[in-house]
Amino acid sequence: MYGNDLSPLLSQEVLDLLGGVMGGERRGLAKAISYVENSPAHSRPLIAHLYHHQALGKALVVGITGPPGGGKSTLTSFLVKHLRATGATVGVILVDPSSPFTGGAFLGDRVRMAHSNSDPGVFIRSMGTRGHLGGLSLATQDTVLLMDAYGVDFVFIETVGIGQSETDIVRTADITIVITVPGLGDEIQVNKAGIMEIGDIFVVNKADLDGAERVVTEINVMLDMAPRLGNAPNLRPPVLRTVANRDRGVAELWATLQERLQQFAEIGELALRRERRLWQSVLGSVQFQIEQQLSPVLAQQRSGILSRIAEGSSSPFEEAKHILQIIERK
Amino acid sequence: MYGNDLSPLLSQEVLDLLGGVMGGERRGLAKAISYVENSPAHSRPLIAHLYHHQALGKALVVGITGPPGGGKSTLTSFLVKHLRATGATVGVILVDPSSPFTGGAFLGDRVRMAHSNSDPGVFIRSMGTRGHLGGLSLATQDTVLLMDAYGVDFVFIETVGIGQSETDIVRTADITIVITVPGLGDEIQVNKAGIMEIGDIFVVNKADLDGAERVVTEINVMLDMAPRLGNAPNLRPPVLRTVANRDRGVAELWATLQERLQQFAEIGELALRRERRLWQSVLGSVQFQIEQQLSPVLAQQRSGILSRIAEGSSSPFEEAKHILQIIERK
Repeated sequence: MYGNDLSPLLSQEVLDLLGGVMGGERRGLAKAISYVENSPAHSRPLIAHLYHHQALGKALVVGITGPPGGGKSTLTSFLVKHLRATGATVGVILVDPSSPFTGGAFLGDRVRMAHSNSDPGVFIRSMGTRGHLGGLSLATQDTVLLMDAYGVDFVFIETVGIGQSETDIVRTADITIVITVPGLGDEIQVNKAGIMEIGDIFVVNKADLDGAERVVTEINVMLDMAPRLGNAPNLRPPVLRTVANRDRGVAELWATLQERLQQFAEIGELALRRERRLWQSVLGSVQFQIEQQLSPVLAQQRSGILSRIAEGSSSPFEEAKHILQIIERK
Repeated sequence: MYGNDLSPLLSQEVLDLLGGVMGGERRGLAKAISYVENSPAHSRPLIAHLYHHQALGKALVVGITGPPGGGKSTLTSFLVKHLRATGATVGVILVDPSSPFTGGAFLGDRVRMAHSNSDPGVFIRSMGTRGHLGGLSLATQDTVLLMDAYGVDFVFIETVGIGQSETDIVRTADITIVITVPGLGDEIQVNKAGIMEIGDIFVVNKADLDGAERVVTEINVMLDMAPRLGNAPNLRPPVLRTVANRDRGVAELWATLQERLQQFAEIGELALRRERRLWQSVLGSVQFQIEQQLSPVLAQQRSGILSRIAEGSSSPFEEAKHILQIIERK
């Protein structure tokens, strides 16, 4: 409908990037991800283009979350091993909101994905905050789209599961695995409500440690109390046991993951989640464009606004109204 | 400057609420807080009015944060005891983002502020999420303003220190106390960077437990590495020890808090933080008003947008542009 807006916005350079991604070129994908990370504003037309090419929606997106020290990275790397054994390809996004680093090599050090370092069917990318969490969330979403267009069968998003923002990142997935381990203590309780909501499959890793069965029981009890998925009242999330660093239970996890994705597709849950995700992208894009318009006006008006309020002749409410009037007049 | 916009927006009912708050009526304050919580949109003119009356900026706002089980509530209640002994008055806001409850009596149960239950110089209010964190943050800010206008000398904001959103809430304070305890394990490490940034005073509570000295040392090491405050390169945050439930070390904390606030005032740090807070209120108000305009348009356009993108004739980027055009035409 508005497709004709796009073409003049794409430089030859961006068209080349797009060609590289959609042609399945590994270096092209890496460059395109760097581009969306470094130029979140300028890269919007590139991302838009992916939608017009209907190059999206083929990859299955798996969120993997859990506390630090829970063995997420080890579990992910063995999961990748089992996935690769079927011939499927995967993009792995390692998200660490506590890290200022981003790019190909940094966080990867915490993993280096032992079994997949030089495998052409595995593409690994690390993402740190580089400033602000909002940017991280956008960059992660864009990277999912780029990996999808590049042609991987799966995208894994691995993230530390603590705060709201990480939860938001995981919400962009088709399915989410929540990993816990024994011995984390009561402070984890606080997040249980949120974690219970987002988990489609629960894994108690380090299941050979003391207390593992207690954790399994706790999760089961909470799942029995939790409401089921809207479309899938009978699809209770399974609770699996793994010892990731010895590859125990990971094959079962991989089988369960595929089976559950299949069920989600059959009952319409997958379509529902993708629609929700798409809508979130639209909202995110609206937000982003508003910010682009607002930033210069706010910067220019700041000192006037602050002094008017300080002297009691205005308030944030009235100044906000005024700002919106300025924007609308433009 | 835009002050004449306000009057027609205030009903007699709201004027009565305002009168109650600024007249120092306890019931009036309680009613006004409920009003801003329940009607975030309609209550904007009331909050704006507080700025015009220059009723704000008298209370000193203290953020108190730390992990669940860290003894925040006990420490807060003893801090209130020492504060009251000087004749000062205080409003306490107990923020629990994991709780859906809000109002006077709910979270208060976890505290009931043993020493201050029926003390007219102490006003306690609990806040849960009631839906979404954004709302919690706004309601907390508004409650600070209302308590300030009501006339308390101090406002304490006590919040569980885990995610970004709680950190945002604490950022509305003039000064922030970060509480830790021994024995929380490694998962706390993740948040250390963020916590180090916001803490002006560190407290190791339960200092009679094993491992307390190690925590004190760890915090000191991290503080030695951290950058100092812009205005106050010599104002290194102190690290205190308390055993809150036996009132040990709390008098020292209270003395340190007052002293540090005094120093912040002298070096201009207090003014800087208040300006930053005011600016955040302006940004929040802009955001809020934009959302009020957007919501109905988005709801109305949703299905059309989703189908255009699904059929490959549009993208979130273009749809966002279109949405902004609709808003601007209004």
